[in-house]
Amino acid sequence: MPDFAQSIQAALSERFGERLAVDPALPGLEELSRLAARRVCRRYLPREVEASLLRLLCACALSAPSKSDLQQGDILIIRDKAKRQSIGALLPDMPWLPEAPVFLVFLANGRRLPLIAQMRGKPFPNDHLDLFFNATVDAAIVLATFLRAAEAVGLGCCPISMIRDHARVIADMLALPDKVVPIAGLCVGWPAEPSGITARLPLGLTLHEERFDEGDLGQQIESYDRRRDARRPYRNQRQPERFGRAEFYGWSEDKARQYASPQRADFGAFVRAQGFKLG
Amino acid sequence: MPDFAQSIQAALSERFGERLAVDPALPGLEELSRLAARRVCRRYLPREVEASLLRLLCACALSAPSKSDLQQGDILIIRDKAKRQSIGALLPDMPWLPEAPVFLVFLANGRRLPLIAQMRGKPFPNDHLDLFFNATVDAAIVLATFLRAAEAVGLGCCPISMIRDHARVIADMLALPDKVVPIAGLCVGWPAEPSGITARLPLGLTLHEERFDEGDLGQQIESYDRRRDARRPYRNQRQPERFGRAEFYGWSEDKARQYASPQRADFGAFVRAQGFKLG
Repeated sequence: MPDFAQSIQAALSERFGERLAVDPALPGLEELSRLAARRVCRRYLPREVEASLLRLLCACALSAPSKSDLQQGDILIIRDKAKRQSIGALLPDMPWLPEAPVFLVFLANGRRLPLIAQMRGKPFPNDHLDLFFNATVDAAIVLATFLRAAEAVGLGCCPISMIRDHARVIADMLALPDKVVPIAGLCVGWPAEPSGITARLPLGLTLHEERFDEGDLGQQIESYDRRRDARRPYRNQRQPERFGRAEFYGWSEDKARQYASPQRADFGAFVRAQGFKLG
Repeated sequence: MPDFAQSIQAALSERFGERLAVDPALPGLEELSRLAARRVCRRYLPREVEASLLRLLCACALSAPSKSDLQQGDILIIRDKAKRQSIGALLPDMPWLPEAPVFLVFLANGRRLPLIAQMRGKPFPNDHLDLFFNATVDAAIVLATFLRAAEAVGLGCCPISMIRDHARVIADMLALPDKVVPIAGLCVGWPAEPSGITARLPLGLTLHEERFDEGDLGQQIESYDRRRDARRPYRNQRQPERFGRAEFYGWSEDKARQYASPQRADFGAFVRAQGFKLG
């Protein structure tokens, strides 16, 4: 039997730059080891994902908790090759997208609840930010839970949030009705090649006790940039013609450059056009 | 060794009213069986959750994927009894809240990214809906992943989205700065009493193939109401003084009544006051 406690410790140390205590007598260590060593998968074997298996995994994902039991997260399965290629053509920087045999789209469904109110002859004075928010959170929880189910059986996945860069085209292609919007896509397939573990911000920034306290943000970002770079430096710098060549190019420089241009500035307009009010 | 394939099938049949195929030769069936039989836990043993264990589970949760690697979901741990009681006092219908030894709050953190832009001397033309949205989805994914980690080691959890009914008080109590908002809370403890499996909408409504298709919504809701009622009828009807006594009181009637009154109509104002723009 593999030493799960040790592999968890190794993965989390690589992830957070911190040696965490792991009690080897804990139950569930195998599952924790998958969580700790979680990695994206962008290369897939030319092997189908059986429809019955996919349905099983979706059912497991849809067993996740849901805000007030409202069940506002849906899954849309795309297997059709032409459709996957059309989506892939929108995102040419992600050549692995159409190569995955299955592409899922996770949907925030704020449509059912007002329809149910109507069906039961009740008023619905809740057409405001909360409706959109609850459906979004539900869909994200379904996505995260699907990931766990898929990885448990050995599948590899790659989330594609950039489908929202083309939200209108995607919504039309998938016939999304009013008050249904895509949260993210997910490539699913049998892994051909494992990716590496992505280093994460130190827990000093993302884990707070009793009250919000990020400590010295600048210093922690700096040391994260360095830790990450030591393991896996960026191969390319974004927009050198605009920003020049950085001598040291870390995560924070990369993210600052990425978001120095408008990203999905029309997403609010799309969400409103889909019938959500964000007041 | 327990027959996981059989227990998964039984749980999902109870959940969705459908017999799903489960290949007994699949790896990861133990994990799938936990997902399939997932249930909320509202009664806890008077036993601490060790700080080191909690830190380990949070690290596993924070290993989840994050939109563009931006890492905008944070966790805030509350152990302090007085603080848990103050939060519990806001939600007197949830007496189990202060009884859980640990209360977590999952935070959408849209603060770091603009600070990083500033730190790196870059413009940040992305102060619109996308910032709030990405941070919200990240935080929800961290929450769902934490749940998997906690249940793997035998802990029980109960999500509390209703903390957002008191978002301003909670934000002040936890010293949340600008552009940080709570997504949901989570009670965590060692389970004293298992709850039942909650029935879910049929997959015909929540799982779509190739395009959005909910089929006959009315008929499927109706049959879900009946299936759910046969297993666990509602004990109380909401607001009978306003809506009368329904002869048959199912899920859709309950949800229609719940949302016939404004819920968190001030949430948008709160999010804006925290500095997010939703344009």
